[in-house]
Amino acid sequence: MNLVTLDDIDAAARRIAPDIVRTPLLAARWSEADRPLWLKPENLQPIGAFKIRGAFNALGRLAPEVRAAGVVAYSSGNHAQAVAYAAAAFGVTAHIVMPEETPAVKVQATRGHGAQVVLCGAGERESVAAELVERTGGVLVPPFDHPDVIAGQGTIGLEIAQDLPEVATVLIPISGGGLASGVGTAIRALCPRAKIFGVEPELAADTAESLAAGHLVEWPVAQRNRTIADGLRATPSELTFAHLQRVLDGVIAVSEGEIRSAVRELACKAHLVAEPSGAVALAGYRTAATPPGPTVAIVSGGNIALPLLAEILAEGQ
Amino acid sequence: MNLVTLDDIDAAARRIAPDIVRTPLLAARWSEADRPLWLKPENLQPIGAFKIRGAFNALGRLAPEVRAAGVVAYSSGNHAQAVAYAAAAFGVTAHIVMPEETPAVKVQATRGHGAQVVLCGAGERESVAAELVERTGGVLVPPFDHPDVIAGQGTIGLEIAQDLPEVATVLIPISGGGLASGVGTAIRALCPRAKIFGVEPELAADTAESLAAGHLVEWPVAQRNRTIADGLRATPSELTFAHLQRVLDGVIAVSEGEIRSAVRELACKAHLVAEPSGAVALAGYRTAATPPGPTVAIVSGGNIALPLLAEILAEGQ
Repeated sequence: MNLVTLDDIDAAARRIAPDIVRTPLLAARWSEADRPLWLKPENLQPIGAFKIRGAFNALGRLAPEVRAAGVVAYSSGNHAQAVAYAAAAFGVTAHIVMPEETPAVKVQATRGHGAQVVLCGAGERESVAAELVERTGGVLVPPFDHPDVIAGQGTIGLEIAQDLPEVATVLIPISGGGLASGVGTAIRALCPRAKIFGVEPELAADTAESLAAGHLVEWPVAQRNRTIADGLRATPSELTFAHLQRVLDGVIAVSEGEIRSAVRELACKAHLVAEPSGAVALAGYRTAATPPGPTVAIVSGGNIALPLLAEILAEGQ
Repeated sequence: MNLVTLDDIDAAARRIAPDIVRTPLLAARWSEADRPLWLKPENLQPIGAFKIRGAFNALGRLAPEVRAAGVVAYSSGNHAQAVAYAAAAFGVTAHIVMPEETPAVKVQATRGHGAQVVLCGAGERESVAAELVERTGGVLVPPFDHPDVIAGQGTIGLEIAQDLPEVATVLIPISGGGLASGVGTAIRALCPRAKIFGVEPELAADTAESLAAGHLVEWPVAQRNRTIADGLRATPSELTFAHLQRVLDGVIAVSEGEIRSAVRELACKAHLVAEPSGAVALAGYRTAATPPGPTVAIVSGGNIALPLLAEILAEGQ
């Protein structure tokens, strides 16, 4: 299996530079007792999540005549908005397949970027997307299972290595594994002494189990769906798993309470609105005895419903 | 009266670069109908506000043997934390005079940066600070009425001009006027065609009245204290007023409801936690018929108490 290389990620960085925010590292050491921590606030990207990087790289890699036929994606979350946003920037059509139970606010946001949203029943989204590819001639942009998507997400790792070359630990949320595959590849190449940890909810800790087993272990979707971190309910593909086996030093599991507490800490102390999935890396830093040197936690996204944010903030009072 | 120059601001930028976050401009056009808007998220600075820039420039400008005697400041807000933080970075003592009614959380935050906090009665803070200067030999760092502080805040204007040279409108919160004086000076010099507007609460709209009158008109403090924007209750000094007369194209007043709505919009759409004072520039953009070209609104700070943030978010449900 061909894995993504540092060259792929370098090329992605040049390709997507005009369209993404070069997010700064934010020092997040609230007291002298803390180990040194920096946050990488990907919630500040357009559409509020790192997914924009992979989407722009995947669309940018298509030959113009191929891209002109449009793109197709399936997602109930940030990937939907990312592909819709990138397609609009390229001036091509996007068909986004979303489950019927997707919250209206996410459907509206995706339509707001000019995409055609196609609702489908549970378990049908891949087949509906395949039909759309057949009918429209558009190209499928998968949420993580593609080298161009992985390379796009990996540009975050390049930026971390540029801004904090002495980084000792990088903490990365894990779901389908595209983010950790890309960032891990960049950090392994540029900061070989750094430790790289994935962070996942205890309620969707399939990646830790898979890595321990040495092969993909799939948890039932109903089990994974229990976590509040709705962006972390996916499971790695063979491609991302091969990357994770190579780049991760370990996986940290965090509880639902620790995730909520991290959302609150990010709002109060870092002045960042993070969705639960975007806060798990900070939760991992608070939970686990990671190495003592400079640490970066990726805040991967900020798309949280207002009532949930208000509820989590109120728990801290 | 000598006004701050672009050279002063350039020098400040070089001086403070290692200690501040080079904040990115964040595109904030949520729908095609909106005029093009960028946010300058100064709430992401250490201590959560732009004040860190002026504090580092003021301390950095002191001769080392003068600075060694320590610094003194009076503030119940972000300036207190900024001076405490900068003093700790320089390894010198900071005495911060705060009114007795300052919320405990702000006193703790200031102490958390290693400062000596001296509580005082209402209306006494300037005299108590003067006594401390006398007793300790420390240097007073005023919150806005000083050229080095103005030049430090002006570095935000430099960054805007570098990142968006075609900027047509800049919206800046106004209180004591240090931020608007510095940013306005940089923008006037580098983007002479841009319009520069101050934004202040209707309940503390003394600057608009002063500019109309051609001289400082002071509103009673009890009147100014009615606004929720607790960082915008100060009034310009002769020095900042002279800058504002020269650089501002106008002042926009915003209601309390518009301020609360902007706090909510920043959290939901931009994934930024802003304090009410930090949200007024966006409120001004939503309220006033500013010119149609690219606009920058400065999000000046994010230090909002958790219960108030939860309350404002709940209003949007």
